[in-house]
Amino acid sequence: MRAELARLALDGFLVPRADEHQNEYVAPCEERLAWLSGFTGSAGLAIVLKEHAAIFVDGRYALAIKDQVDQTVFATLALTETSPQSWLESQLTRGMRLGYDPWLHTPSQLERFSGTAQKAGAELVPVEPNPIDALWTGRPSAPLGKIALHGRQFAGETAKRKLARVAAALGTNDALLVSDPHAVAWVFNIRGHDVAHTPLPLSYALIFKDAEPRLYADGGKLDKRTRDTLSTLAGIKEPTCLARDLDALGREGKRLLFDSATVPAKLASIFNDAGGSCEFGTDPIGAMKACKNETELEGARKAHLRDGAALVRFLHWFALHAPRGKLTEIDAALALETFRRDTHKLKDISFPTISAAGANAAIPHYCVTDKTNANIRKGIFLIDSGGQYEDGTTDVTRTFAVGKPTALMRDRFTRVLKGHIAIARAVYPKGTTGAQIDALARVFLWRAGLDFGHGTGHGVGSYLSVHEGPQRISKCGNAVLEAGMILSNEPGYYRAGHWGIRIENLIVVERRPIAGEEHEMLGFETLTLAPIDLALIEPRLLDDEEIAWLDAYHARVRQKISPLVAPGVRRWLHSATRPLSRQPGLARKSPKSRR
Amino acid sequence: MRAELARLALDGFLVPRADEHQNEYVAPCEERLAWLSGFTGSAGLAIVLKEHAAIFVDGRYALAIKDQVDQTVFATLALTETSPQSWLESQLTRGMRLGYDPWLHTPSQLERFSGTAQKAGAELVPVEPNPIDALWTGRPSAPLGKIALHGRQFAGETAKRKLARVAAALGTNDALLVSDPHAVAWVFNIRGHDVAHTPLPLSYALIFKDAEPRLYADGGKLDKRTRDTLSTLAGIKEPTCLARDLDALGREGKRLLFDSATVPAKLASIFNDAGGSCEFGTDPIGAMKACKNETELEGARKAHLRDGAALVRFLHWFALHAPRGKLTEIDAALALETFRRDTHKLKDISFPTISAAGANAAIPHYCVTDKTNANIRKGIFLIDSGGQYEDGTTDVTRTFAVGKPTALMRDRFTRVLKGHIAIARAVYPKGTTGAQIDALARVFLWRAGLDFGHGTGHGVGSYLSVHEGPQRISKCGNAVLEAGMILSNEPGYYRAGHWGIRIENLIVVERRPIAGEEHEMLGFETLTLAPIDLALIEPRLLDDEEIAWLDAYHARVRQKISPLVAPGVRRWLHSATRPLSRQPGLARKSPKSRR
Repeated sequence: MRAELARLALDGFLVPRADEHQNEYVAPCEERLAWLSGFTGSAGLAIVLKEHAAIFVDGRYALAIKDQVDQTVFATLALTETSPQSWLESQLTRGMRLGYDPWLHTPSQLERFSGTAQKAGAELVPVEPNPIDALWTGRPSAPLGKIALHGRQFAGETAKRKLARVAAALGTNDALLVSDPHAVAWVFNIRGHDVAHTPLPLSYALIFKDAEPRLYADGGKLDKRTRDTLSTLAGIKEPTCLARDLDALGREGKRLLFDSATVPAKLASIFNDAGGSCEFGTDPIGAMKACKNETELEGARKAHLRDGAALVRFLHWFALHAPRGKLTEIDAALALETFRRDTHKLKDISFPTISAAGANAAIPHYCVTDKTNANIRKGIFLIDSGGQYEDGTTDVTRTFAVGKPTALMRDRFTRVLKGHIAIARAVYPKGTTGAQIDALARVFLWRAGLDFGHGTGHGVGSYLSVHEGPQRISKCGNAVLEAGMILSNEPGYYRAGHWGIRIENLIVVERRPIAGEEHEMLGFETLTLAPIDLALIEPRLLDDEEIAWLDAYHARVRQKISPLVAPGVRRWLHSATRPLSRQPGLARKSPKSRR
Repeated sequence: MRAELARLALDGFLVPRADEHQNEYVAPCEERLAWLSGFTGSAGLAIVLKEHAAIFVDGRYALAIKDQVDQTVFATLALTETSPQSWLESQLTRGMRLGYDPWLHTPSQLERFSGTAQKAGAELVPVEPNPIDALWTGRPSAPLGKIALHGRQFAGETAKRKLARVAAALGTNDALLVSDPHAVAWVFNIRGHDVAHTPLPLSYALIFKDAEPRLYADGGKLDKRTRDTLSTLAGIKEPTCLARDLDALGREGKRLLFDSATVPAKLASIFNDAGGSCEFGTDPIGAMKACKNETELEGARKAHLRDGAALVRFLHWFALHAPRGKLTEIDAALALETFRRDTHKLKDISFPTISAAGANAAIPHYCVTDKTNANIRKGIFLIDSGGQYEDGTTDVTRTFAVGKPTALMRDRFTRVLKGHIAIARAVYPKGTTGAQIDALARVFLWRAGLDFGHGTGHGVGSYLSVHEGPQRISKCGNAVLEAGMILSNEPGYYRAGHWGIRIENLIVVERRPIAGEEHEMLGFETLTLAPIDLALIEPRLLDDEEIAWLDAYHARVRQKISPLVAPGVRRWLHSATRPLSRQPGLARKSPKSRR
């Protein structure tokens, strides 16, 4: 690579883990960072200079990076401690030329680098094609996953109507460049097969205030029927036409809205250089997509019923086999995937399963590999997984005890459960943000001097990305919670080096009428249907309302899932969902608080 | 005024309720908005044009404005509905000249207006002196309140050390212009007597990185001893010298930090026009002042003990007299002030007392006048008041039932109390902001479809402003809570047209070690000592830990205040602070939750 940079008269090059849409999951041909460094995480950035090279990752990958990357070649740095900009400041000198691929960075990402370069008297240079592509022998070709229509029975709203809503939301702009393929998928009611885990079609669209929309998708992805249907909605063009079209619009002096989170700098600068007027903002589709309609919610309920039955079959299987001490993390992950495939409706798993035993469970974003694959022994087992079904996307975490859990495990699990229940039961006025309720999931841990280091919940798409914005429950969750938004509810606790706990259900924001209310109130419906391990609960730490919630939840799981599983599984399910309130030994001796 | 504007060739003028330091309480000579319009609230803006005039106020003053302002002359507009900028947009035409007093606006306030003017092709014109001053016959002269030294026994840190800390916090700036008189007071350990309720000295200071500080205060405010002491710390100059000094510093090409929240546009532009380099940011003194040292906290505890005894004497007096139905809101406010004056330590009340009976209590920022002065009858009485003592500033609200309260009053009061207790008992990790815990005060109201429309808590100074930043508990409270910060804890509930409830104590952030903690945890110490009305509590809605908190709080009030009051008051206090947990009728029949 350094030889290639020298040939191009460059002193360095930026290698982000990114494709031209800033996707979380990218096509194999976009894994330039992995090709260069060996690092396979879903976020990161390498900077290669003549003498030095560094790779920057966030806390999730602090451990993995040391295993995957040759540290004699790369300095491995934590983003929270050293920003790429501050590292560059110490490396750049006057006259240096630092290259970047203008398709892989947004304008705002570049701004931070150009400030740094300017200070040092260095120059940022766009380079096309990406120099890595010439070096990477056997680089996979770009994916050509077929685009499928996402039927009305799943989408609940016609693409025609969605396009009209978007056109009406453009304000003073003449058009919107849709650069987020999730947004393209939503607005045209299509799904793709280009990247793992998320059914998005790599594509762009232009939606005009007063003209026919244009969809830029590779013709190889469209069969005749799909093309015919889409042609009634939009002009269908090859992605290679987009640059020319933006140039033409720029020459006409149009005003375009660009989604600042995903637009490649290349496209914005083509339009800008041609004389167009750029507005960088938020694609209005994000907020529309976040609020699911009744059809999508009905689909989500069906998907969760199906997914819940698969998960219950897995948990029964796990309860039978795990105590024998022979299962590994990979065995468990594969078994669960098999139970999901048995539904004959699974399109993909919605993200790589986190199957973690013992100390591995203390790593919130653990991903099992052949090297780390642990035997599941006495202690704690955590499994975080999900499925992509045409009617909905699932994401669920359960933590189970193998053998008899310790009192400390039960105390911590019960505190996490109390936080989970507090979110599930939360009632709040319209206008409340996720940031305002995040602490409800934490106060029981805080009282013991504990916390967890991630948000309480992320948004989830409808047969789309399992990580969707703008909705979230975290201290940074500034989006107002609106009816129809799907989110996760996943507080946890991680005892580093020992074990970890997370309890995750998906929830939907819903109107919650209350007698005598003075404000329009909202609450959550819980979608996920799977037992929560009673063996890990310390009932004395729960109050009556928490017990009532848990018993009602388990009764619903039992009632909904029982008809879908075989008698042996059903017997296990009945025991796993037995009510706490009728258990002997639960009757409290004194009215003392149990918190 | 319109004649004067015509004489000055102006088409309009901005009249903010502001002095040149953006103070909450201003000197009488600065009440130009009241002179012009009759409006006496603490925030607002009038815009006078040739044909039209409008006055903009926030929700607190929505009712008062209609009473005070002649609506045939002024359109009275709510800031939340119509911004002054959007109103101006509909009024300004090309070539119009809109005047403003450059001492009464910060540069960022003006920016918003200049954008609007520019769009319309109009011009913003600085006008000095303020045209109102020539018209206002009998305008009071500027105050010359004596500056007093704030002794080491109250401040706990020498001004010398504070000045060094500020100098060290200037970063790449050569100096800081201290334009917030609260900050001048804190850093020089002085207090003034220029405005009501807050002992601030109207003054400026320049604090240099590497040179002697300068204090700009009117010589008429300084006696010899004060001047001698201050001269050891700083050069003492007349405020009229500041403009010349800023001009000189600008010519030397210095870089100055201006406090963007308080700096008058006039001063920034003098420096900028002379060639200086302006950095608009946050005065670092704000964050230093917010964290009280041990001496200040000891002072606060003493002030609250003294203030609590005065309040208890008042509450006893009120309990005796109110049931007879002869008291008015003003009687109550004056009585409380008298009890505070009886301590012989009261310097001032810390804000105009809110003494509100019945429906007036439903107005969170109610201020009694001769016109509104209601008789205190059966129902609810709310009193929100505070004192300025040299050792500390107090702010406390108590809501009492006169006669037997209704079940609805008791339900609402108890929900507010539960929120108050949740804040008082909160434990949270270092790094938590006020925004993250605000909801803890609301969830019990939310469950009933209710809420309150103000923040849960504001910062409080140490013998300084009763409203101090940056610390606050509200959904906008982005400042991290740090040990030593004093805040209010004041959830409420307002039943418009009927009655209102608020329970307010001051609290201090303190380190809260917890056995086995994995994070550094913080909690609150409650400073305020006064009974909370037991008649308004529905004990069945409290859980055991809430009852334990209340009983322990009341035991502390009883123990601390009893020795300070006469036997008759003491007997009343003992009854008013009797423990709930030993009350007959409290024993719960079932272990059912009471939340």
